[in-house]
Amino acid sequence: MSRFMSGRFERLKEYAPGEQPQDKRYIKLNTNESPFPPSPAVSAAVNERAVLDLRLYSDPRSAALKAALAGQFGVSSENVFVGNGSDEILSFAFMAFCEKGEKISYPEISYGFYPVFAELYELQKNELALRDDFSIDPKMYHGLDTMIVLANPNAPTGLCLSPEEIGKIASSNPDRVVVVDEAYVDFGAESVAALTKELDNLLVVQTFSKSRSLAGARLGFALGNKELISDLEKLKFSTNPYNVNRLSLAAGVAALNEQEYYDNNCKKIIATREYTSKELAKMGFWLTESRANFLFARHPGIDGQELYLTLKERGILVRHFSKPRLRDFVRITIGRQEDMERLVLTVKEILENA
Amino acid sequence: MSRFMSGRFERLKEYAPGEQPQDKRYIKLNTNESPFPPSPAVSAAVNERAVLDLRLYSDPRSAALKAALAGQFGVSSENVFVGNGSDEILSFAFMAFCEKGEKISYPEISYGFYPVFAELYELQKNELALRDDFSIDPKMYHGLDTMIVLANPNAPTGLCLSPEEIGKIASSNPDRVVVVDEAYVDFGAESVAALTKELDNLLVVQTFSKSRSLAGARLGFALGNKELISDLEKLKFSTNPYNVNRLSLAAGVAALNEQEYYDNNCKKIIATREYTSKELAKMGFWLTESRANFLFARHPGIDGQELYLTLKERGILVRHFSKPRLRDFVRITIGRQEDMERLVLTVKEILENA
Repeated sequence: MSRFMSGRFERLKEYAPGEQPQDKRYIKLNTNESPFPPSPAVSAAVNERAVLDLRLYSDPRSAALKAALAGQFGVSSENVFVGNGSDEILSFAFMAFCEKGEKISYPEISYGFYPVFAELYELQKNELALRDDFSIDPKMYHGLDTMIVLANPNAPTGLCLSPEEIGKIASSNPDRVVVVDEAYVDFGAESVAALTKELDNLLVVQTFSKSRSLAGARLGFALGNKELISDLEKLKFSTNPYNVNRLSLAAGVAALNEQEYYDNNCKKIIATREYTSKELAKMGFWLTESRANFLFARHPGIDGQELYLTLKERGILVRHFSKPRLRDFVRITIGRQEDMERLVLTVKEILENA
Repeated sequence: MSRFMSGRFERLKEYAPGEQPQDKRYIKLNTNESPFPPSPAVSAAVNERAVLDLRLYSDPRSAALKAALAGQFGVSSENVFVGNGSDEILSFAFMAFCEKGEKISYPEISYGFYPVFAELYELQKNELALRDDFSIDPKMYHGLDTMIVLANPNAPTGLCLSPEEIGKIASSNPDRVVVVDEAYVDFGAESVAALTKELDNLLVVQTFSKSRSLAGARLGFALGNKELISDLEKLKFSTNPYNVNRLSLAAGVAALNEQEYYDNNCKKIIATREYTSKELAKMGFWLTESRANFLFARHPGIDGQELYLTLKERGILVRHFSKPRLRDFVRITIGRQEDMERLVLTVKEILENA
């Protein structure tokens, strides 16, 4: 930190994203990207004409993408916010809906960015324990009277709450915003997007990064009551009005026009997840019942850090977290079927040599 | 504002960007975009392969673009920050380098976003008067002992300070950060980028939006002492680590490889600015001596608002500001020579009928 930086950031520890090697030598199963490219309409939308038009600013109201999302979710454009990735939206939500010093509640094990946002905006972290099986006890979130953030499915466990459970959490905290981060919802969980019509304190955040194969385009969105959405717009127009670039806006609209392609990819990923999960279980791994595009797995014979490092040596990148309850585990993104067959074989070899 | 939003944003008034009509019927001279498309290498970089790779996250360290910028400016990569447009960088600077309640100094007439950032981060606005001719008196900024932000050239006046004047301002406030926003520097002003090697409190912010024809890609950068840069990195990694998308990173690197193309465009814009300025002066306009890609002009026979509205009716969009000292003026972006000839003719007609 320089001598010029505000003292309030002294203890702030930034988020550490997964490795993004720029040389691409790995089978990359570490940051939950889709193994499938964007659909043909995305390639068609990012054309020569669109590149020449980069001289012009993007639409600061993201009108075309909002309309397309509103159509897909059966809401109105004023119920939709569009962000430069869902991280930007989460950051705005933490900034908007808490006073400095207030408590914010989320599971002790979840997306590692929540505590960073809490530190950044000087909030008190109310980190609620998971059950022994890593599931969330929804009753612990009833009547908390703090802002609540829940990833559903949760990361890195892949476990879900039902829409009923989330609805109860939101309706039992009627005066505080409940954010549901549905980054992984398309891989077998159920969205609570429809509940935003009844519950004015429920904000649902989704992303184009996972099921929609656009991690590198930086595109996220939120659905909620129009007043919540206009709060986010206020912060956007007070920080970065042109927050999403022209090509990503065009890519997003195009992707929504080919939903079937993405639905099929999700089906393939789910099938490959079930295959991989069974194969790992056969080798003695304990796994959570993941509904996301990753597995969360532990083996009694090998430490998580060691498995991560050995796989990396052999050209396969997975994610390891050093937090005490997580360090026995690795998180493995579901890639193409052939990638996962290679993973299974490699893990077998490693265990035989361990 | 919803009942959930923090009370600290009650008085916050967001930035109002210039109109961005999505139907493109206008000669658009209102948001200082380049009239020239990005260079051929940009089109080549945003290719089919790059679109397919959108499934992967962008490089959160922006290593390739940082290296290219470092090469162009004769600094090291650790002296370079890359942002999702320069607005994001300015927002981080306001957040990083001031405590809540502190004063921040900038000219009373300048980029309209500075007071918005000040409100957002709860700073005291120390807005310093311009001289009667709209120029900045650099001595007013000596020894202020507050963070200082200066657009150079200033907007919407187009007037410049010299590198010597800016150097004195920075060295007379050695314990506070001085941000120089050089969005328009390539149209005839002189950058202070080289001074960042001597002055550890000087942060120079530039953008790809104007001279580099990439407004719609959202790409800005900052140059400064490596400690200042690492402060900005800390905030980036605490809000949005993947802040710049893959295609914009690739476009930025490609653009830097064709500097001559952009230099030629700047020369054309400067020549067209001189033409337009002379023609308007002949009609009785008073203009500042703009070194930017826009003119700031007032006519004794017609009010700024009326000129703006009449031009809009006739298919030409310029910018009008309602602030008292600005409302007699219009700000006119320099477009292609033929666009400006059309503007000159249209203004003549309007004045004849006024």
